[in-house]
Amino acid sequence: MNTPLDRAACEALDHADPLGPLRDRFTLPDGVIYLDGNSLGPAPKATAERVARTAELEWGRDLITSWNKAGWMALPAKVGAKIARLIGADADEVVVADSTSVNLYKCAASALKLAAPREVILAEAGDFPTDLYMLQGLADFSGAELRMVAPDQIEAALTDEVAVLVLTEVNYRSGEIHDMAALTAKAHAVGALTVWDLSHSAGVLDVDLNGAKADFAVGCGYKYLNGGPGAPAYVFAARRWHEAMRTPLSGWLGHAQPFAFVDDYSPAPGIARMACGTPPVLSLVALDEGLNSFDGVEMAALHERTGRLGDLFITLADQRLAALGLEVASPRDWRKRGGQVSLRHPHAYEICQALIARGVIPDFRAPDVARFGLVPMFVRFTEVWDAVGILVEVMASEAWRDPRFAVRTAVT
Amino acid sequence: MNTPLDRAACEALDHADPLGPLRDRFTLPDGVIYLDGNSLGPAPKATAERVARTAELEWGRDLITSWNKAGWMALPAKVGAKIARLIGADADEVVVADSTSVNLYKCAASALKLAAPREVILAEAGDFPTDLYMLQGLADFSGAELRMVAPDQIEAALTDEVAVLVLTEVNYRSGEIHDMAALTAKAHAVGALTVWDLSHSAGVLDVDLNGAKADFAVGCGYKYLNGGPGAPAYVFAARRWHEAMRTPLSGWLGHAQPFAFVDDYSPAPGIARMACGTPPVLSLVALDEGLNSFDGVEMAALHERTGRLGDLFITLADQRLAALGLEVASPRDWRKRGGQVSLRHPHAYEICQALIARGVIPDFRAPDVARFGLVPMFVRFTEVWDAVGILVEVMASEAWRDPRFAVRTAVT
Repeated sequence: MNTPLDRAACEALDHADPLGPLRDRFTLPDGVIYLDGNSLGPAPKATAERVARTAELEWGRDLITSWNKAGWMALPAKVGAKIARLIGADADEVVVADSTSVNLYKCAASALKLAAPREVILAEAGDFPTDLYMLQGLADFSGAELRMVAPDQIEAALTDEVAVLVLTEVNYRSGEIHDMAALTAKAHAVGALTVWDLSHSAGVLDVDLNGAKADFAVGCGYKYLNGGPGAPAYVFAARRWHEAMRTPLSGWLGHAQPFAFVDDYSPAPGIARMACGTPPVLSLVALDEGLNSFDGVEMAALHERTGRLGDLFITLADQRLAALGLEVASPRDWRKRGGQVSLRHPHAYEICQALIARGVIPDFRAPDVARFGLVPMFVRFTEVWDAVGILVEVMASEAWRDPRFAVRTAVT
Repeated sequence: MNTPLDRAACEALDHADPLGPLRDRFTLPDGVIYLDGNSLGPAPKATAERVARTAELEWGRDLITSWNKAGWMALPAKVGAKIARLIGADADEVVVADSTSVNLYKCAASALKLAAPREVILAEAGDFPTDLYMLQGLADFSGAELRMVAPDQIEAALTDEVAVLVLTEVNYRSGEIHDMAALTAKAHAVGALTVWDLSHSAGVLDVDLNGAKADFAVGCGYKYLNGGPGAPAYVFAARRWHEAMRTPLSGWLGHAQPFAFVDDYSPAPGIARMACGTPPVLSLVALDEGLNSFDGVEMAALHERTGRLGDLFITLADQRLAALGLEVASPRDWRKRGGQVSLRHPHAYEICQALIARGVIPDFRAPDVARFGLVPMFVRFTEVWDAVGILVEVMASEAWRDPRFAVRTAVT
C-alpha cells in the first residue's frame, strides 16, 4: 500500500476517505486519540438516548407488556441477524446470549458431544485466557482432555483423537490471524469440529464463517461491535448442526416452548436453542445500537481500511520507533493482521501509562505488549501520525520512567 | 390479621402505612394497577438517568478508563453485597453474574463435585422450568441422575444417594414457601447439599440463608429486586464452601488474577470465583439502582407487609370471587406464602387479558393460573380493593369471553 510519510499526506488520506464519515456515528471525547476500540468500542451517538428511552418508556411505562410490544423477546435473534452479516453467516445462524465465555462453553461442549467418543479439545497456548479457562473447566467437569499447543504446533496436533479445535481467529497479543478456512479444512480432514472465537476479528475483518465451513463460533459485543461495556455476546452454529447439537446450558429461552412451562426440556429449533436465560435488555438494546453503526458499511471495504491504518502505523514505527527500542510484534502483511498493531518493550506498561497521560489510549497486555487498536470505523490516519509522534516523544524523553506510571491498576 | 372490608378502610390502611411512601421511589404509569412485579419489577425513578449517564459519560467520554475510574470492575461484588443484606448472607458471600439459569448450573455442578461420588440431583416436579431444564442439561452432560419428585415427596426422596437438593424457595405457580431451614437440615442429615433459587422470594420475604445453613443459592435481579428486564442474576455460596468449591464455568473474571493473562486457571478467593465473563455494565448499574430502592428498608417489615397485602386479597377473593369460579391456589397462612396470590380458573388466560384491557396487570402461568403479585414495595391496599372489584366485574359480565382475549402472544 502507498504510505504517506508526513502529516499533510495523512490529512489528504482522511479527506479523501469514503469511510471517514463513519467516525461521526460515535461519541469520542475531544483531545483524546482512542486506540483501544479493540478492548472497548466507543459509544454510538444514539445509544445513551436509546437506553434511557428503553428504561423510561418501554420498561417504566409499559412494564411487562414490552416483552411483546417493544419486541424485547425478539431482540436476541434480531441483533444476531445483524451480526450474521458481518461474519459471513446466515441471519438465522446467529443468536445473542450470555457472555463470550459462557458461549464458548456451550459450543465446545456441543462439539464434544457431536464428536463422541473422541475426548480431546485442542487449543492454542497463549490464546485469550478466558477461552482457555473455560475449556479447563469443561475438561475438569466432563472428563475430556484439554491439549494446549504452541501456535506452530496446531496443525501437527490435529490427529484423529481430536474432537474439537478451539481457536481465537485473531490472537489478542500479536494481532495475527489464523487461516480459518485452512485450519477448519484440516480439522475436518481428521474428523474434528471447530469453534472459532471472533472477539478480535468481527467488526474489522471481512470474516466468512460459512466460506470457511466453520462449525461453531462465538464473539464479544463490546469490542469492535461497539455494544457497550460487557455487552452480550453471540453464538454461531452452522445450519448443518442445528438439528443434532445440544447445549449443557439448556435454559428456558432455548426451549421449544418457553412459555408452555412444562417440566421437560425440548430444544428450540435452530440456533435459538443456544439461548439460555432471560436476556439483559438494557445491554441488549445498546448492542443493537452498536450494530446499527455498521449500517451500509461493506465489510470488505472496512477490512481494507483496517489494513491501511495498520500499514501506516507499522511503517512509521519502523522509521521512528525501532531505534527507540519498540519492536513491532504484529504481522507486517495486512492480510495476516487483525485490527491492532502490537509493540513489544520490557516497560510496555509504563509506556502505555505515559501515553494515556498525554491523551493517547492504547492498552497493555502482560507481560510486555502495548496494543494499538487501529479501528477502521473511527480512527483517522492523522491520529496514527499524531500517536506515533507522541510515542516518539515519550520514548526519546524517557517520560515513561516517571514513577507514577509504574503504579498498577486493577484493570489494564 | 385485621382485614378491612370496604374501600375507605383500605384508604385508611394506606394512609397509616409507614412503608407506603416507598412507592414514590418508582415510576408507575397512571391508570394502571401493576400486579406483575413478581415477573418484572417496576423502574426506580433514578434508573433511566443513571443508565444514560453511564452510557454517555462513563462509557462515551471516559471510555476504557471507567473499568477502574467509574468502578465498573467492582460492581459485581458491590451490588452482590447489597443483595446479601436482603437474603441473610454476609456481604462477601454474594456476587452478581450471568443469568439465574447459568448460576444454577454453576452451583449445582459445584455441589455435585463437592458431594462426589454421589450423582443424584433431587428437584421438584413443577418447579420453575428453567431450573429443571438446566439440571437436565447438567445431568445429560455430566452423567449425573436428575430425580424430579412431587413437592410432598421431597423429604422421602432425600436419601443418602442424593448429592444435591435444588429447590425454588417460593413456588412460582402457587406462591407456596418451602421451609428452607427444615429441608436444608434434612438434606444435611443425609449428607446432601442444597441449592436454593430465591428468584421468587428475595425482595419480598425476610430470607435468611445463613440462618437456614443453606449451601448455595441463586436468584434473579429483574423481579422483586427491580433491576430491569433481564437484569443480571446473583450467586450465594456459604463461606464454608468458598475454599473447596469449583465451577465448570471458570471464566476469567473468576480467576485469581484476571489481568495477569496466564494460560492456567486458578480460582479467585471467595465468592468471586463464581463470576465468569465480563459483566454487562449497563444492565448492572440498573440493578444497582434497583437495589438502592431497598435503602433503609427492613426486610422483616417488608415481609409483614407482603403478608397483609396477600391476606387482604385472599379475604376479598373468598368473599367476592369464589362464587364466580375463581379458586385461591396459594397458601392462606401468610408465613407460608410468597409475594403473589394465585387464582385458578380454566380460562385464566382470557381472564388475565380482560384485566389487562382494564388496566389491571397480573400474569398467566400455564395451564390455568392467574398470578397477582402483591409486591410490598409499591402495591397499595386500595389497589388490591380496586383490582378485585374489576375482577368481579370481568367475571360477572363474562367480559373475558370476548374472542380478542383468547389470542395468545409470545410471552404471557
